[in-house]
Amino acid sequence: MIKIIVDAMGGDNAPQEIVKGAAMALNQDKDLQVVLTGDEGKIKESLAGLSYDAARLQVVHCTEVITNDDAPTLAIRQKKDSSLVVALKMLKEDESAGGFVSAGSTGAVLTGALLRVGRIRGISRPAVCPALPTAKGGKVLIIDAGANAECKPVNLCHFALMGTAYARTMGVKDPRVGLVTNGTEEHKGDPLHQESYHLLKDLAGIRFVGNVEGRDIMSGDIDVAVCDGFSGNIALKTAEGTALAVMSVIKQNIKSSLAAKIGYALFMRGAFKKIKKVLDYSKYGGAVLLGIEKPVVKAHGSSKAESVCAAVLQAKEAAGSGLVGEIREMLAGVDLEIAANA
Amino acid sequence: MIKIIVDAMGGDNAPQEIVKGAAMALNQDKDLQVVLTGDEGKIKESLAGLSYDAARLQVVHCTEVITNDDAPTLAIRQKKDSSLVVALKMLKEDESAGGFVSAGSTGAVLTGALLRVGRIRGISRPAVCPALPTAKGGKVLIIDAGANAECKPVNLCHFALMGTAYARTMGVKDPRVGLVTNGTEEHKGDPLHQESYHLLKDLAGIRFVGNVEGRDIMSGDIDVAVCDGFSGNIALKTAEGTALAVMSVIKQNIKSSLAAKIGYALFMRGAFKKIKKVLDYSKYGGAVLLGIEKPVVKAHGSSKAESVCAAVLQAKEAAGSGLVGEIREMLAGVDLEIAANA
Repeated sequence: MIKIIVDAMGGDNAPQEIVKGAAMALNQDKDLQVVLTGDEGKIKESLAGLSYDAARLQVVHCTEVITNDDAPTLAIRQKKDSSLVVALKMLKEDESAGGFVSAGSTGAVLTGALLRVGRIRGISRPAVCPALPTAKGGKVLIIDAGANAECKPVNLCHFALMGTAYARTMGVKDPRVGLVTNGTEEHKGDPLHQESYHLLKDLAGIRFVGNVEGRDIMSGDIDVAVCDGFSGNIALKTAEGTALAVMSVIKQNIKSSLAAKIGYALFMRGAFKKIKKVLDYSKYGGAVLLGIEKPVVKAHGSSKAESVCAAVLQAKEAAGSGLVGEIREMLAGVDLEIAANA
Repeated sequence: MIKIIVDAMGGDNAPQEIVKGAAMALNQDKDLQVVLTGDEGKIKESLAGLSYDAARLQVVHCTEVITNDDAPTLAIRQKKDSSLVVALKMLKEDESAGGFVSAGSTGAVLTGALLRVGRIRGISRPAVCPALPTAKGGKVLIIDAGANAECKPVNLCHFALMGTAYARTMGVKDPRVGLVTNGTEEHKGDPLHQESYHLLKDLAGIRFVGNVEGRDIMSGDIDVAVCDGFSGNIALKTAEGTALAVMSVIKQNIKSSLAAKIGYALFMRGAFKKIKKVLDYSKYGGAVLLGIEKPVVKAHGSSKAESVCAAVLQAKEAAGSGLVGEIREMLAGVDLEIAANA
């Protein structure tokens, strides 16, 4: 049995869709236990009419909510009875708590995880690590996708190690790690990426395949795309935006042709449903925050029940697979010189 | 009549496809004159069998070729009889030459344009500016898409001015300019982007809509996406890679279902051809190098005749629309304070 704590009040569709998603996850996994933090009255309202195993669900009442309008650091310090802070405190103190999920403010989740749960020893900068689908049908991890707008070379080394550890726990035996820059030659990029290239080339424990370009991220040729948090965020969101734009162009063209409309209605609806499923990032759960003492999953702010369910199962998998232990082990094998360069 | 010079030896498919593309462009536009620089024997071989108006085509023989393996600056200085250097010299010295196209090494084209043609007065860093399709059926310009891996805030202001000028000559009346960062709030990004935000907010002559995210680039809500050359290159190539990955996922799903295969063959081939055309960046010609005294268009290295043709017509349009004059005029209206911050 693995216990996952869920911030029931974070996200655009909280608490209804969060609560519904948690109940879905309980139905899909009999080894899962869920703790919901938030307004007990509202949570119970959202639970009414849902069928789930009540013995595996616990509600912890709290009175405050942190929103996107709150300044993260201040909110974490002051809103001590918020669903986020109460959840993170429990994650830290309750040994049986395996992981945490929130669809709330990214800044607050990140800051809260740092201040209330703490970093893995040796990791100076935790990083956001979502998965994207690839052209070959697999997945690719992007790390860092936005936690750190400014990075040092040692941070990118840690991202490579943590991404490798995470890909391994997801079943990739010897993950291929690429450094995302503006060209494949080793001298490409700004000083940060040039220096990172040389550190990554010699870094123990990872399979570094060199510099890659934006177009290689989703090609299926790499498993871990290492980025500084600024350009990684742009890459992630450009990928999301492009997928939406392409689907929109396809829709417009199908709609504007009678033949295509008929073909779609008669023959292709099923295929397109599958396509949408592959491309819909909400099906991929959330982005794991790597470098924190316990798995923290940040779901999209706009998450509906299905995405919340995926994120809860993802947190459970991360907890059960020993992700944090794997990261610690990889760090232990690293040359101290690199740590000293921090 | 507008004269465009074409580097017949640059690119993976040179000279055959370059020559073929130039001939196609001559057939499509009766006001176009083309000068091909390169190995006369090989060019004439490639011309054999093509039908075109020979009176509007001139071949200038030269003996050397600059490849991707050459170090750009050294090659531009030493290979004086290369197709690229001969073409750029002619672009600079021949008053009747309106623009230039090459599918050769990006570094060499950029360096050559800087050293042999020269910058527009006031622009310290010319920038690469390709167009991408948007979800709403229009186009969006990305500037800088890779010429400058390291930028200062003043460079991003110049990119905004040049992108606005280019969008105007393409028929967009009051182009909306967004600064691509890792979030829409004004404090987002690293110091470069934070400072750029404040300069852009007060910059005369542009319509600044604020910070945008990667997902907004192709949404159709902006006309000019201002980026530093490092993250701009990653955004551009991630968009290309994502479009390819999405199309590949669609193909796989259509192939794996008999119903979808039938539907595709009977009804949807036409719609998909149109979709491919919208998404195929080769149809968008090349990326214009903005900030150079005359229009320089860099076509993809893998360009075939059709893309070369589009790039030649694009160079002619840029020359005929007074793009360089428009940029000069915009610079004249700018606060000198900004120039001083360079």
